[in-house]
Amino acid sequence: MASRMCDSVLVTGSNRGIGLELVRQLVDSPSSPLQIFAGCRDPNGPRAQELQELAQKHQDVITVVQLDTTSLASIADASKLVEAKLNGRGLNLIINNAGVNIPGSLAETGKREMVDVFTTNVVGPMLIAKNFHPLLCKAAAQFPHQTSMSSSRSAVVNVSTLLSSITRCPENFSISPMYPYRVSKAALNMLTCCLAEDFKKDGILVMSLHPGWVQTEMGGPQAPLATAESVSGMMKVITSLTEKDSGTLLDWEGKNIPW
Amino acid sequence: MASRMCDSVLVTGSNRGIGLELVRQLVDSPSSPLQIFAGCRDPNGPRAQELQELAQKHQDVITVVQLDTTSLASIADASKLVEAKLNGRGLNLIINNAGVNIPGSLAETGKREMVDVFTTNVVGPMLIAKNFHPLLCKAAAQFPHQTSMSSSRSAVVNVSTLLSSITRCPENFSISPMYPYRVSKAALNMLTCCLAEDFKKDGILVMSLHPGWVQTEMGGPQAPLATAESVSGMMKVITSLTEKDSGTLLDWEGKNIPW
Repeated sequence: MASRMCDSVLVTGSNRGIGLELVRQLVDSPSSPLQIFAGCRDPNGPRAQELQELAQKHQDVITVVQLDTTSLASIADASKLVEAKLNGRGLNLIINNAGVNIPGSLAETGKREMVDVFTTNVVGPMLIAKNFHPLLCKAAAQFPHQTSMSSSRSAVVNVSTLLSSITRCPENFSISPMYPYRVSKAALNMLTCCLAEDFKKDGILVMSLHPGWVQTEMGGPQAPLATAESVSGMMKVITSLTEKDSGTLLDWEGKNIPW
Repeated sequence: MASRMCDSVLVTGSNRGIGLELVRQLVDSPSSPLQIFAGCRDPNGPRAQELQELAQKHQDVITVVQLDTTSLASIADASKLVEAKLNGRGLNLIINNAGVNIPGSLAETGKREMVDVFTTNVVGPMLIAKNFHPLLCKAAAQFPHQTSMSSSRSAVVNVSTLLSSITRCPENFSISPMYPYRVSKAALNMLTCCLAEDFKKDGILVMSLHPGWVQTEMGGPQAPLATAESVSGMMKVITSLTEKDSGTLLDWEGKNIPW
């Protein structure tokens, strides 16, 4: 049996798309974590039914957590619940997957679109990292002092996109203008880099991960990559992260994407 | 006498610091624009007194414009005023200089700080570019069809910072953590790149410019660079911009900064 990916993981936005598939593959893996916290905004709503069914089947592993990543009150409640469930142990891994896209050309983009997408895609991951920092530190400290950084020790993975790359923007802008999304994801990459520097002293790895263009509600049916394939690649990348990957942007095949 | 830098220019946040010095050097230059629109939030407040005195001395060139770059109503009024003053001609150059910094470590940074700084530093320049786009197009079209892009024809300069560079973040994060500022300015760089691609067809150049670490209210007295020196460098860079500089981040000496 493979060594465990990590003891505990929190996935945000886990009721559909990539988030749901992450929870599914995590729990189905021979190296499944002992505890999976599946965050979603409305756990009792119709859009969380599939997640609830999955959690029912794996009650010993999956805990569904009400988590609106833009609400401080919701984050505080969720972190208390996670802390209690961890029973003195730290949280090894956070996958900041919750995100939103309002596809918008310049003509379609106003202040509201810019601020709303930024709040979900950047402020959310910032608040999650900040509020779960003590639990991440605790997880990192449970490893011997000289241990290298890894996702099994303590890590934050921010789900980003190829469209976050300013370097690549001239190549792909005309295909998908998407001002609010691109701008927010470039901002998220800076957040990743700041957190990576900030958390280095604590032994916490932080990186951005591009899942590919995936057949989800957000990616649309014309996307070239099936969700399961993308997530399987993401899992491999996350499992093999080392110190040198902290503060970088990788794709689901582990290839580096320039800022 | 040197050839004119451009016929008309709008500078936002022009009542102090780099903005005020830009207006001063523009009007004092032997190649002064014919019309300088000096935008500021509160033209009648005590913090705009220096600008008003300068405008009094150069009534034929400087028009002080009430301009809150985060208010659609204010931008609409300002663009109407500028359009009327231009009397059928286009606007050649916009310097998006208005910006804010709430220096903040992670502990000091919350949702409000992140959203406020993003709104001023990113949404503002986006709304300005969008609403003044017709006047920029008109300016570009007044040049012969095959003319290359330049600041004398039609351009948007977004005032950015070295701290916007994700590539450089590991080198300078510990000196100035500043989450909201760094994140907003990386987002601004993506906006620059999107606008550069979008406006290419119209002959409008768009770039980000790092003024250096300057002795202003924002930069503090310990900054190594005097405001006049920084602005004199910025003016040289802006004047010499060509097609290849669109979609890039340069410093006040014209050196490229990686994303």
